[in-house]
Amino acid sequence: MALTILKGTIVSAPSLGRLDSMEDGFLVAEDGRITGVYLVLPERFSGAPVTDCGGDLIVPSFADLHLHAPQYPMLGMGMDLPLLEWLEAYAFPTEARFADLDYARTVYRRLAAELIRHGTTRVCMFSSLHTDATLVLMEELERAGVTGYVGKVNMDRNSAPGLLEETTEQSKRETLRWLDACGDFRRVHPMLTPRFTPSCTNGLLAFLGKLAKERGLPVQSHLSENSAEMDWVRQLHPDCAQYWQTYAKYGLWNDRTVMAHCVWSDERERAAMRDAGVTVVHCANSNQNICSGVAPVRVMLDEGLQVALGSDIAGGDQLDMFDVVASSIRASKARRMMDGWQTAFLTVAEAWFLGTSAGAAFFGAKPGFAPGNPLHAMVIRDSGLPQPHPLTAAQRLERAVYRRQSDAVRAVWSEGRQVFSAEQP
Amino acid sequence: MALTILKGTIVSAPSLGRLDSMEDGFLVAEDGRITGVYLVLPERFSGAPVTDCGGDLIVPSFADLHLHAPQYPMLGMGMDLPLLEWLEAYAFPTEARFADLDYARTVYRRLAAELIRHGTTRVCMFSSLHTDATLVLMEELERAGVTGYVGKVNMDRNSAPGLLEETTEQSKRETLRWLDACGDFRRVHPMLTPRFTPSCTNGLLAFLGKLAKERGLPVQSHLSENSAEMDWVRQLHPDCAQYWQTYAKYGLWNDRTVMAHCVWSDERERAAMRDAGVTVVHCANSNQNICSGVAPVRVMLDEGLQVALGSDIAGGDQLDMFDVVASSIRASKARRMMDGWQTAFLTVAEAWFLGTSAGAAFFGAKPGFAPGNPLHAMVIRDSGLPQPHPLTAAQRLERAVYRRQSDAVRAVWSEGRQVFSAEQP
Repeated sequence: MALTILKGTIVSAPSLGRLDSMEDGFLVAEDGRITGVYLVLPERFSGAPVTDCGGDLIVPSFADLHLHAPQYPMLGMGMDLPLLEWLEAYAFPTEARFADLDYARTVYRRLAAELIRHGTTRVCMFSSLHTDATLVLMEELERAGVTGYVGKVNMDRNSAPGLLEETTEQSKRETLRWLDACGDFRRVHPMLTPRFTPSCTNGLLAFLGKLAKERGLPVQSHLSENSAEMDWVRQLHPDCAQYWQTYAKYGLWNDRTVMAHCVWSDERERAAMRDAGVTVVHCANSNQNICSGVAPVRVMLDEGLQVALGSDIAGGDQLDMFDVVASSIRASKARRMMDGWQTAFLTVAEAWFLGTSAGAAFFGAKPGFAPGNPLHAMVIRDSGLPQPHPLTAAQRLERAVYRRQSDAVRAVWSEGRQVFSAEQP
Repeated sequence: MALTILKGTIVSAPSLGRLDSMEDGFLVAEDGRITGVYLVLPERFSGAPVTDCGGDLIVPSFADLHLHAPQYPMLGMGMDLPLLEWLEAYAFPTEARFADLDYARTVYRRLAAELIRHGTTRVCMFSSLHTDATLVLMEELERAGVTGYVGKVNMDRNSAPGLLEETTEQSKRETLRWLDACGDFRRVHPMLTPRFTPSCTNGLLAFLGKLAKERGLPVQSHLSENSAEMDWVRQLHPDCAQYWQTYAKYGLWNDRTVMAHCVWSDERERAAMRDAGVTVVHCANSNQNICSGVAPVRVMLDEGLQVALGSDIAGGDQLDMFDVVASSIRASKARRMMDGWQTAFLTVAEAWFLGTSAGAAFFGAKPGFAPGNPLHAMVIRDSGLPQPHPLTAAQRLERAVYRRQSDAVRAVWSEGRQVFSAEQP
């Protein structure tokens, strides 16, 4: 039996707004699953090797529930453009390059390594429409230790003719070919990925909905990000009063569905998400960069929706989830101002919960370092920072979020295995 | 005559919203002052040594016009608290430690080095109320190559009794002692610094105004940051209809005055700033962190006010001005949303102008790399980033702003001297 014992200052978010911490605690995992967190190591583990992290923080690693892998090369570019122009000028031409598998291999290896180095071990990720590059992406994620879901993108209309397009038949055929080739992956699994309603014909959406049901596949897409996009959806689907119904009517709306953005989701759309168990992915950085708006996250949480965080590169400008957590706090403060100072902002503890426990929940994990969870953890070192006075673990975590130092993550475990160590490059 | 010739991709902001760029250009400075930017090196410099920066970007270094040096140790902490509570819980206790000169030396040496490493070569900076620690700060800035103004803080009421306080007499006497000791600094100069109106008695404000006039000293303070603060000012100065008048009536309001925040400055207060030539320091990060609001920067610029940027550590969570520039863009997008989508956001070129040329203007420099300016420049390397397609210099600068990579700055010149090289640590 493989045994992992980490000793240090253990901090996790067992529920929204709460942080549990223990100094000089022991986090134990057996065969890759968490046994427990202990102040005194249980007798039966005595004599077992302990990884002593000293005063470093041991925290759950991040879950990034929305990002576009092929947009990684254009991170931090084109931010002065609105969504639909930005897609044409930057996103589509950049994604089109992934027809080249050598290029895909180079970019995706680098992306996977950067995710792990920043402590992101779980993802729901968009690839491009290219089947083979998507398989390369899955290989590289699996090799690096990133777990979760990846989707070959479906887009059979309103795309970029001559550059990035597929017919309905190609889209269906390639989706099936892709799914057939996914069988060998152990930690990265396929997720159906209609790009967004305007990019998919009704025939294709119906095909994907049927496939999701027959094979029990999860689904990811975009929802209510931008008012121009929403107008367009209304024109394309005059029978649907709301955007979400364009997914629901084709069977793409259930508790294995992840919807990015939801900036403009009103009470009825939010109720539809809650009732179906859809997970909302809040992409604060992207929504602010592309001037989409600020999603009503506080209201969603109060209403009982499941909300996780996404970097949404490359609408978001940072892959680092420390930055994404900080962005969600900043955005909640902007929202507070926009709401006439009535809405409470997200506290650090709340945003940390969204970036870790809430994202992990989509993968079946219980919050924080709950026993039974697969071990997803990272070690954060802040001893190089000034210490104005003795700091609590919560204060140290807050500072790690805001300072987002690039070398703060010292070691990472993903699904029970250590996948990164800053000490052994 | 000392001659500096830098070769590379030269980019600067000659006016708001405009970027000039030249690939394989030469930036020449003689005796520390810029001679010009040339595509072909003038004959008279032939044979002179050239620092070849290859494809790296050569850009003006940053001016940070508002930051609190003694809050550096608490960077990224306490961000869930509103301004006045945050001052009591974090800022005052942290500042109080600077009675200890050894502590001050350690912290300020580190701060000065970090400023230079991130390409900040000009500052308007608050110290604490401690005269001797302020002198230590000035020594450390000068040693590292940071130029500009530093102020011993005056605060003779409503401070932190027993922790951080001075009587009116002490404040006056210490200010004079401090000014007497500033004579030996060549590149760092004193700036009168009433903390903010609620912290200073009328007698002290009158003393400082008289001193400013007699000795031709510049002034810095805070203005209209937060509505609770503004209510307080109104109670303290019932004779003043507006906050700015509490400074103006004591002679602390002219074209050598820098006022941080101005989040809530209305049309009349803005007109008073424009008419007097007061420089507004926009501190986007801090204003959002502490939930103060978002300053109407676009309106200020349209009205012809002088607006520069400040990191405002530690209300701001980042010292890095790349981050501060990005924050000002993000904040302007929040402001656009708050204004019913009517207000144009800051483009990258505009925000870059504010962080460099507009700040440098307070020190008498003309915009960009204008001939006659003292050489303040830095070299930015982005060759390690993916290159999705050939990028223009403006696109590269945009990415440098958004990626804000900690090791991007390779070399820095300040007032003509090279003060940092990443190659020779």
